[in-house]
Amino acid sequence: MLESRILILSGVNLGLLGQRQPEIYGTDTLDDYIARARQRAEILNATVDDLQSDSEAVIVEAIAAARSTHDAIIINPGAFTHYSWAIHDALAAFDGPVVELHISNPNSREAWRHTSVVSPVANAVIAGLGGHGYELAVEAVVGILG
Amino acid sequence: MLESRILILSGVNLGLLGQRQPEIYGTDTLDDYIARARQRAEILNATVDDLQSDSEAVIVEAIAAARSTHDAIIINPGAFTHYSWAIHDALAAFDGPVVELHISNPNSREAWRHTSVVSPVANAVIAGLGGHGYELAVEAVVGILG
Amino acid sequence: MLESRILILSGVNLGLLGQRQPEIYGTDTLDDYIARARQRAEILNATVDDLQSDSEAVIVEAIAAARSTHDAIIINPGAFTHYSWAIHDALAAFDGPVVELHISNPNSREAWRHTSVVSPVANAVIAGLGGHGYELAVEAVVGILG
Amino acid sequence: MLESRILILSGVNLGLLGQRQPEIYGTDTLDDYIARARQRAEILNATVDDLQSDSEAVIVEAIAAARSTHDAIIINPGAFTHYSWAIHDALAAFDGPVVELHISNPNSREAWRHTSVVSPVANAVIAGLGGHGYELAVEAVVGILG
Amino acid sequence: MLESRILILSGVNLGLLGQRQPEIYGTDTLDDYIARARQRAEILNATVDDLQSDSEAVIVEAIAAARSTHDAIIINPGAFTHYSWAIHDALAAFDGPVVELHISNPNSREAWRHTSVVSPVANAVIAGLGGHGYELAVEAVVGILG
Amino acid sequence: MLESRILILSGVNLGLLGQRQPEIYGTDTLDDYIARARQRAEILNATVDDLQSDSEAVIVEAIAAARSTHDAIIINPGAFTHYSWAIHDALAAFDGPVVELHISNPNSREAWRHTSVVSPVANAVIAGLGGHGYELAVEAVVGILG
Amino acid sequence: MLESRILILSGVNLGLLGQRQPEIYGTDTLDDYIARARQRAEILNATVDDLQSDSEAVIVEAIAAARSTHDAIIINPGAFTHYSWAIHDALAAFDGPVVELHISNPNSREAWRHTSVVSPVANAVIAGLGGHGYELAVEAVVGILG
Amino acid sequence: MLESRILILSGVNLGLLGQRQPEIYGTDTLDDYIARARQRAEILNATVDDLQSDSEAVIVEAIAAARSTHDAIIINPGAFTHYSWAIHDALAAFDGPVVELHISNPNSREAWRHTSVVSPVANAVIAGLGGHGYELAVEAVVGILG
Amino acid sequence: MLESRILILSGVNLGLLGQRQPEIYGTDTLDDYIARARQRAEILNATVDDLQSDSEAVIVEAIAAARSTHDAIIINPGAFTHYSWAIHDALAAFDGPVVELHISNPNSREAWRHTSVVSPVANAVIAGLGGHGYELAVEAVVGILG
Amino acid sequence: MLESRILILSGVNLGLLGQRQPEIYGTDTLDDYIARARQRAEILNATVDDLQSDSEAVIVEAIAAARSTHDAIIINPGAFTHYSWAIHDALAAFDGPVVELHISNPNSREAWRHTSVVSPVANAVIAGLGGHGYELAVEAVVGILG
Amino acid sequence: MLESRILILSGVNLGLLGQRQPEIYGTDTLDDYIARARQRAEILNATVDDLQSDSEAVIVEAIAAARSTHDAIIINPGAFTHYSWAIHDALAAFDGPVVELHISNPNSREAWRHTSVVSPVANAVIAGLGGHGYELAVEAVVGILG
Amino acid sequence: MLESRILILSGVNLGLLGQRQPEIYGTDTLDDYIARARQRAEILNATVDDLQSDSEAVIVEAIAAARSTHDAIIINPGAFTHYSWAIHDALAAFDGPVVELHISNPNSREAWRHTSVVSPVANAVIAGLGGHGYELAVEAVVGILG
Repeated sequence: MLESRILILSGVNLGLLGQRQPEIYGTDTLDDYIARARQRAEILNATVDDLQSDSEAVIVEAIAAARSTHDAIIINPGAFTHYSWAIHDALAAFDGPVVELHISNPNSREAWRHTSVVSPVANAVIAGLGGHGYELAVEAVVGILG
Repeated sequence: MLESRILILSGVNLGLLGQRQPEIYGTDTLDDYIARARQRAEILNATVDDLQSDSEAVIVEAIAAARSTHDAIIINPGAFTHYSWAIHDALAAFDGPVVELHISNPNSREAWRHTSVVSPVANAVIAGLGGHGYELAVEAVVGILG
Repeated sequence: MLESRILILSGVNLGLLGQRQPEIYGTDTLDDYIARARQRAEILNATVDDLQSDSEAVIVEAIAAARSTHDAIIINPGAFTHYSWAIHDALAAFDGPVVELHISNPNSREAWRHTSVVSPVANAVIAGLGGHGYELAVEAVVGILG
Repeated sequence: MLESRILILSGVNLGLLGQRQPEIYGTDTLDDYIARARQRAEILNATVDDLQSDSEAVIVEAIAAARSTHDAIIINPGAFTHYSWAIHDALAAFDGPVVELHISNPNSREAWRHTSVVSPVANAVIAGLGGHGYELAVEAVVGILG
Repeated sequence: MLESRILILSGVNLGLLGQRQPEIYGTDTLDDYIARARQRAEILNATVDDLQSDSEAVIVEAIAAARSTHDAIIINPGAFTHYSWAIHDALAAFDGPVVELHISNPNSREAWRHTSVVSPVANAVIAGLGGHGYELAVEAVVGILG
Repeated sequence: MLESRILILSGVNLGLLGQRQPEIYGTDTLDDYIARARQRAEILNATVDDLQSDSEAVIVEAIAAARSTHDAIIINPGAFTHYSWAIHDALAAFDGPVVELHISNPNSREAWRHTSVVSPVANAVIAGLGGHGYELAVEAVVGILG
Repeated sequence: MLESRILILSGVNLGLLGQRQPEIYGTDTLDDYIARARQRAEILNATVDDLQSDSEAVIVEAIAAARSTHDAIIINPGAFTHYSWAIHDALAAFDGPVVELHISNPNSREAWRHTSVVSPVANAVIAGLGGHGYELAVEAVVGILG
Repeated sequence: MLESRILILSGVNLGLLGQRQPEIYGTDTLDDYIARARQRAEILNATVDDLQSDSEAVIVEAIAAARSTHDAIIINPGAFTHYSWAIHDALAAFDGPVVELHISNPNSREAWRHTSVVSPVANAVIAGLGGHGYELAVEAVVGILG
Repeated sequence: MLESRILILSGVNLGLLGQRQPEIYGTDTLDDYIARARQRAEILNATVDDLQSDSEAVIVEAIAAARSTHDAIIINPGAFTHYSWAIHDALAAFDGPVVELHISNPNSREAWRHTSVVSPVANAVIAGLGGHGYELAVEAVVGILG
Repeated sequence: MLESRILILSGVNLGLLGQRQPEIYGTDTLDDYIARARQRAEILNATVDDLQSDSEAVIVEAIAAARSTHDAIIINPGAFTHYSWAIHDALAAFDGPVVELHISNPNSREAWRHTSVVSPVANAVIAGLGGHGYELAVEAVVGILG
Repeated sequence: MLESRILILSGVNLGLLGQRQPEIYGTDTLDDYIARARQRAEILNATVDDLQSDSEAVIVEAIAAARSTHDAIIINPGAFTHYSWAIHDALAAFDGPVVELHISNPNSREAWRHTSVVSPVANAVIAGLGGHGYELAVEAVVGILG
Repeated sequence: MLESRILILSGVNLGLLGQRQPEIYGTDTLDDYIARARQRAEILNATVDDLQSDSEAVIVEAIAAARSTHDAIIINPGAFTHYSWAIHDALAAFDGPVVELHISNPNSREAWRHTSVVSPVANAVIAGLGGHGYELAVEAVVGILG
């Protein structure tokens, strides 16, 4: 069986993980999270590429490029979750499974975080599990591709 | 280390899984799902109890009872997700971690399914992964209890 | 031709019919209504079973059970009409015709009665005809099954 | 006993019945529907007059005229249902029973079809029963006049 | 003078009083509250019956039954306050005075607690007084019956 | 034990009590109500001062002054209930308990009466009990101070 | 000085005046109202033409025609008030003064009557004065033209 | 026949008439307007008293006092129109006719001016006629009292 | 190749083009616009028929008739754009392409002009181009039919 | 160059500054704030008059009076910010610059504090700077007058 | 006559044209569309420059630069249409004509596509015509510049 | 005392200052504004760095970088004010004071400019003072740091 090629996209402000508001986001860095994802991927015969960007355009283009290079996308859009219809449309044009990932549970925070414009085009949502969520998202994606 | 005792609650209409609208919910039964959860729990040194009920009252009372018998709750409230403030209040009084679980991704269905009155008191959300979500929810809960 | 097997479900507070607010609901009892339905059914080569319950769970389970025992459902959900997404989902999983029935016309009463969460999964609506509505609903259902 | 004189009003676009969107409205023409209504009326010692118009003004004036010539009105306003406060006011000035009739069930279609500005002044609603609804509406009206 | 017969109904989750979120609800149990109500009733020549249930159906049926056995109802619906139109309708069919009772003041908590679907059919509201509210509600009811 | 010093504030139009719309507000005057409050206070070792004003400014300043002269405030703001954020802010700056009092139950009247801008800063609400409410509010306040 | 030429337009259902819902609209006919308007006009050196129509198109065209024949328009649109943007646009293209006239006061009736789509292009509004309003509207118009 | 005693109340900022924003409100002063009103009153065997105040409390108390001294009220509440439920309640307790008067037409200005909280308790509305409106309001009131 | 038969429908108030509010709509008449359309049609081997009506019913019936006589419809509904669900339904029953046409750009005018109830059933929209829009709409329609 | 005459208006509850909720508003008194404003004014060749009132009417009249005595207004309306259209209208009639001033930043507090009905007629807004804001507002005003 | 210099801007995801969701967007590429635009421009003595970018910033800066290099802008903002107030503001600062262009008709798709934040500053809108729309937009722009 | 290091961030379209819509934004350039800020900073023992970008990502990253290089941020987000939750989140992770700055007063312009998604995380707001606002913002920030 071929390896599943997974792309993990991290949106705006996620480069600050580990430094910013640790009472909400914990002290692990994004690198720690990606490392956990990669570890789980290895077990499941998958590879993980990752990209963090504060630029909506970079995220959109990474999704477009992934159409020919990856089987699945895991995306934590950060604040883009709540208004980037551009990312919505980019994901809608991606054929493989999409998992929407959040470190905290947006539904237990401010009201404006309860709406995800990305979710209508996501196959699955995993939220509130910190770095562990990255591991589970990888397993989820492999399961769907399965 | 002590075993983690997990209660999996399944709300209204979930007894129909495997029979009802297979294009949305798949052909596995709830028993299949619970079995997968239990298997994963075993690996992780946890035990799983489960209860399905079409009665909001039964779900509420199971949550109350779990306060002294279980360490964590995984709950798929079914349609109760969207209006049962009673379940919200019951979960708010539960001290351990709570994972909200859905078989499909409610955010990609009708607009009224986008609002969860339960989510503000859930630590985590896992949605759209079918039976696999039951496995991941168990692992998620064990991770939080960790 | 086989008999059509019809289930008439009456939701919360409908057991009070004939006693409660007769200026709105009239003086006939639910039994009177069911009797009229049964009479009409007889003429049309159909049988009528009926169940009244103040419990949403009982209604939901009756709908689930009817999947293998009845050809059609006539349902007057009472106040459940306005918030029970659980009954909505149960009816969505029922394959035969569903007629939503109300004794008075909810649209000419308080604003919150104008929204029916059940109606999107009903084939037909009959409202405002008191006991006569039960007769007509039976004929309607037989017509659809026809 | 005197005959009940019933006026059946059909609003805008209903002249297209049988030609337009048969997957929603069926293949019967309005004449077929009126014929079924008249047949049922005959049995019930009632007469049926009917008028179809695409003009709101014609409908309004037919209602006004019916004040002295008919005992009851059955009205399928078509799209007027959703904005014609003029028809609302005309019906409010009619003393006999009014039955609002729809061929399909508006509540299971687009959101804007869920609001009827006519319904607050209707005694009864029958929807989703195609031509059979015309028969039942006649029986309903005779029942109310009863 | 005859004794006033009062029914005190406590809705969902109220059996947890004294255990759950004491910073909001205090440490007294529901039994303590009922005892205070009964004491006050004694002084005022009234009797108190009480029922707690997590089931909407049980509450609805207790209200229906009280039509022939009690003169007044004091009801703390718990979370049912915010969506149970079924309880609204049941209370609307009860002829005696109804007092809506809350332990905390819902208006100073989350926005969704500001709407009571029960209140339109309550003669009076007492909120935010903990167990003392039970005493005052009894006196209030006796005053109305007075 | 020291006496509790209670201030009863009555807002706009409450000077008309006993004259205005007796079918809603009864025939007792505000003086009758205050007298009942004072009587109950006497029994409970409390004193009552009172002030009625149609001026929002006078009410605001009475609240500010009460910061050094009274232990608790009972306030029936009249129509100010629904828009006076000024009174809201004044009460927020008062350290003792605040009871919001209404003669009728605003929730069973027009929709705009269902929102109280004062309630978020009130410890308790008593509504719908006419003059008896004044007595109970005094007892409530003494209970909180207790 | 030249005579002021005034056009009084009466919209849908106003031909029923005197017959329909006399508790709201009184027992005078539209002819009585127009007669009062004409009498007042005579005194004020103005002439009155009038047109009643249940057809929005006829009203719209009468407004367009009045551009070259009349100096001012008094319009009671009936139910068109609440949705006819067509009449709004027609009036916007009329250069002389426009007075919006209502027999009852729409603001003290159902909520949907509180919005007038015509009012943004009216110079003045007179409502709630029955036939007397017709007289005053004539005087108002003459005053503006003055 | 006795004289009709009319009270004309002018609310907040109306003392600035003639000085403030003449492109909207014209150059006449309030005194000019009252003079016109009084002139018309004289002809109609009525007397006019008037009061302008920037204080909501003063307006409210003037309405209360008018209960025993005047037969009718003409009120131009100024900006109070849009939020003073206090004035609404005061007017609701006044038995005679109430005419709501505006110098400009609020419906053709900013959106927040389209809502009048006073109008539901006004018998009539006259708006957009400048000083002439004061004359017509007097005649209107005399007509109602007539 | 057969000629494309195009019907251009112009709704309410469009007969005033060239006379009414030239700062918004320009000085050309509707005839000028139609002439430009016809000229372009000629070049493109198409014929143009046209109808202007202030009557919604006439527009609706023209659409219905066009089902057997024309290949495409270009419609500028005027103010009907914003509320005529009747025209929506008529167009939904037309099989050929539909182009919605506006002389000005409604989105840069009042808020209520931003909603088109017709647009959901239009293949294309052309707005803001004055008479040139008529030419382009013809070319657009021919392109679709192409 | 003439001195700029500035009026600083402080609305409802601002007399409590220094006593009330110091965690939000600090411990300085309004007098301290005005003193800082005056000091800055002196440097900038301006004079400062000030008025605090809990009465909307007093504020409105101070604004009206300032039309002939002051060149600019700095206003901290307190809670009036959120509903006093009367102050809005008074400021709209003032010709000089208006600066809206808040001690805290309302946008980072409760949702109802996010709307200012005064702001549409303010030239500038300064918020969240405590007493320093008074200094800056003076400089701002002098700059505008400059 | 000088050539008209037109800039065609294509926003986010439009580089995917021809690959993405062909059932909505067709199989032509953006290059095909631009070629058609250029062809039409040539005939009309205009030149076309074009830029596609997934970056809002790049689009904004292209608009700013066009102020000195181009006479008109044709813009298909893609998903930016629905939230980019930045593009709105950039276009508002451009003096020449602006045509908003869409390949499909957004009004016949999801509700959130019905709102364009760009449209209030566009002279014209062309939607739903695929590549043909590019040709027509060029002609439209030349017409406006004409 | 150490110098305060201030970062002034200018968002989208602000590079056009002085060229674009001078009736709203004046004729000074952003450089002029920054120069004024720097002058004021010098007096107050502070240094000013500045960055203008049309790219949300650049702004977000500048905020993140400022966490270790600057003591305070002054930000004029331009149109990002109204939708960039990304900037909101970036600012929430910045520990020093944040001043939100606008050249005009957004509250006196279009409705959509009244909502700032950035303001909930700003300590202070200064708006409507043109270039002078930059000076005052510097002083404000120094005051907070003070």
